[in-house]
Amino acid sequence: MAKRKPKSADVPPIEMSLEPQRGAKLSKKDERTLESIRALALAVAQSAAQAEDPLIRVPSRSLANVSFNEKARILEMGDKATTRTLFNLAQAKSFMQTMLVAEGANQLISQGKTLSIRGMYYQTKHTIKGTKEETFNNQSESDPIIEDLEVILEALREELHLYAQKRGDMVGDIRILDRGDLIDCSRMGSGGYGIPSIVEPEVIQFRNCKAKFVLHVEKDTVWQRFNEDKFWQKHNCILTHGGGQPPRGVRRLLYRLNQELGLPIYCLLDNDPWGYYIYSVIKQGSINLAFESKRMAVPEAKFIGVRSTDFAEYKLSPSVCIALNDNDRKRARQIADYPWFINKKSWQKEIALMLKNGFKLEVEALISKGISYVTEVYAPRKIAEGDFLD
Amino acid sequence: MAKRKPKSADVPPIEMSLEPQRGAKLSKKDERTLESIRALALAVAQSAAQAEDPLIRVPSRSLANVSFNEKARILEMGDKATTRTLFNLAQAKSFMQTMLVAEGANQLISQGKTLSIRGMYYQTKHTIKGTKEETFNNQSESDPIIEDLEVILEALREELHLYAQKRGDMVGDIRILDRGDLIDCSRMGSGGYGIPSIVEPEVIQFRNCKAKFVLHVEKDTVWQRFNEDKFWQKHNCILTHGGGQPPRGVRRLLYRLNQELGLPIYCLLDNDPWGYYIYSVIKQGSINLAFESKRMAVPEAKFIGVRSTDFAEYKLSPSVCIALNDNDRKRARQIADYPWFINKKSWQKEIALMLKNGFKLEVEALISKGISYVTEVYAPRKIAEGDFLD
Repeated sequence: MAKRKPKSADVPPIEMSLEPQRGAKLSKKDERTLESIRALALAVAQSAAQAEDPLIRVPSRSLANVSFNEKARILEMGDKATTRTLFNLAQAKSFMQTMLVAEGANQLISQGKTLSIRGMYYQTKHTIKGTKEETFNNQSESDPIIEDLEVILEALREELHLYAQKRGDMVGDIRILDRGDLIDCSRMGSGGYGIPSIVEPEVIQFRNCKAKFVLHVEKDTVWQRFNEDKFWQKHNCILTHGGGQPPRGVRRLLYRLNQELGLPIYCLLDNDPWGYYIYSVIKQGSINLAFESKRMAVPEAKFIGVRSTDFAEYKLSPSVCIALNDNDRKRARQIADYPWFINKKSWQKEIALMLKNGFKLEVEALISKGISYVTEVYAPRKIAEGDFLD
Repeated sequence: MAKRKPKSADVPPIEMSLEPQRGAKLSKKDERTLESIRALALAVAQSAAQAEDPLIRVPSRSLANVSFNEKARILEMGDKATTRTLFNLAQAKSFMQTMLVAEGANQLISQGKTLSIRGMYYQTKHTIKGTKEETFNNQSESDPIIEDLEVILEALREELHLYAQKRGDMVGDIRILDRGDLIDCSRMGSGGYGIPSIVEPEVIQFRNCKAKFVLHVEKDTVWQRFNEDKFWQKHNCILTHGGGQPPRGVRRLLYRLNQELGLPIYCLLDNDPWGYYIYSVIKQGSINLAFESKRMAVPEAKFIGVRSTDFAEYKLSPSVCIALNDNDRKRARQIADYPWFINKKSWQKEIALMLKNGFKLEVEALISKGISYVTEVYAPRKIAEGDFLD
């Protein structure tokens, strides 16, 4: 479709309410986010009123626009941006979708509510009047629009009141003020405090932390071993897990514990490409979501194991080794090439040795040395000797 | 290999220690479970001493040995059993594996420790001396042995101190005494109390419950909606989720809340075969693990939705319908044939209507009616009107 200057009569009615529905008392950050959304909407409304093609500037999230700042040890986005206009057939739908999600976030923040990203899909999905066209056909269309909005508005999705899955638990010598409830994480029994999806400072605050570091383990089952053995009490730490790949709430919590309380973050993960990848995401974030790196990533996080050298060092039995498959080898080589690993001799050695070993090792493999070997010998020794990768 | 009566010199040394290592004070139930394990070991040792082929009687877990007791509304196992002997080439390995896992459980209980079923695999896995044979090649070999032991010893795996994955959270007007820590589930903020894997009465006790029912929702994201809207406070209930298919800890907790506190259990699940299946498992247990039904299943649990009739009744938009695929249709028909559904007109109508509709509906679809429609309109109305299936 050829671009043309629309007459003002062509301009569809702007459905977004520019005044928030005040249902809840808003935090300063919510006010700021709302203002960004309103500014976006106003700019579109103004160009429409001036019979110009409404336009949104979307910073580019492509890899070409991402670089690793070696000094600051964070991922940074460059200046590249694309424009998204209404009167361009290729962009009209995503333009409309962007406005819909912005309006959805506007509603959420104004009403003091939060919603899952799946919920946002349903909230904004409908059949466009007079057509058979859906605003969104499935969630894989709305999720990238949420990411676009994060970079357009320079707001984490949590600040747009959107959340991902909730997973992971926490215990340790710290109190958490969670939406007005004071939770004593040193009195949480075998269950623990379920880490929320949204842990922004406006809703989650730290109180009276006596712990000296955080031990983050990959799996709930390993976390249960450490909790049952009261590792966090004996070693004065906070114990977290993320049920595998940690969800955003857990990562953001680790970030805040590190940044605000100065706690070192030690990660105990499997000796396999998946474990490396989890460490990489905690440490630097995801390359595809580089814009979040500076507020989610913990460059100081340490990898305490399981290391490829542990097989020999801890005299593990060949019984507990799991042979690498082709995909493992491929993933390991990809991870070795990540910008934060490629110039690190220690990581190059670690990954090369795993490939040479030809096998991977789960944290649970240490159980073969004794049920509590990992909590009584392995982890204490690693931490005492500072024997980790970073 | 032909069966022969072994001479006593053939009998391999029994490695199982018959005396528990007393590390922890044992509960009465632990004492009982230990006694069952010791009885099993003693019988084997005695037949060995008498130069007889050691034998274990394993109640049959096959479907042919399972029936549904319509009156008691539980799955029951019949009397069929197989024998597992050491001097039978086809059974020698599983005989040895059964002894190994029994010895592993013996250690755990004696030491007052618990372990994941993956951990048990590692604990019992080793290369058999003088051979290249592994005791277990992978976890899919040790898990069924654990199930065998459950029926042999008439003990839930949790009583063998073994646990599955931990998932799910809880809030509501109840206090939980969890291994000595008193947890107030009405002061758990947005995170909630992470439901433990093992919730046996010896470690988890209920205190001062004012809630009148339990609302169990399928997904963490839906749970967050209900928690944020303080549904449990307004409607005086306990709110749980199991992160999809609820793990054993969640099911056993629902069972205990129902049995010990007399709380009705209402389930809010997706209108799809997976949602039906989750309800079925909460209600009756898994056919493959029938022996657990009487201590895990909640026959009284109610299915409050999402119902196939809701599309018309709640005037939902066609936008939020998801077309059934072949697998959905197949699964739906299988579930309709479950013994506890096959004679229930209401369930036959429900499943037939879903098939006729040709679409499924997620709980989140209700968001299209408003962010809090599900907590403010849908669930309260269903519960007030008693509009559910059972």
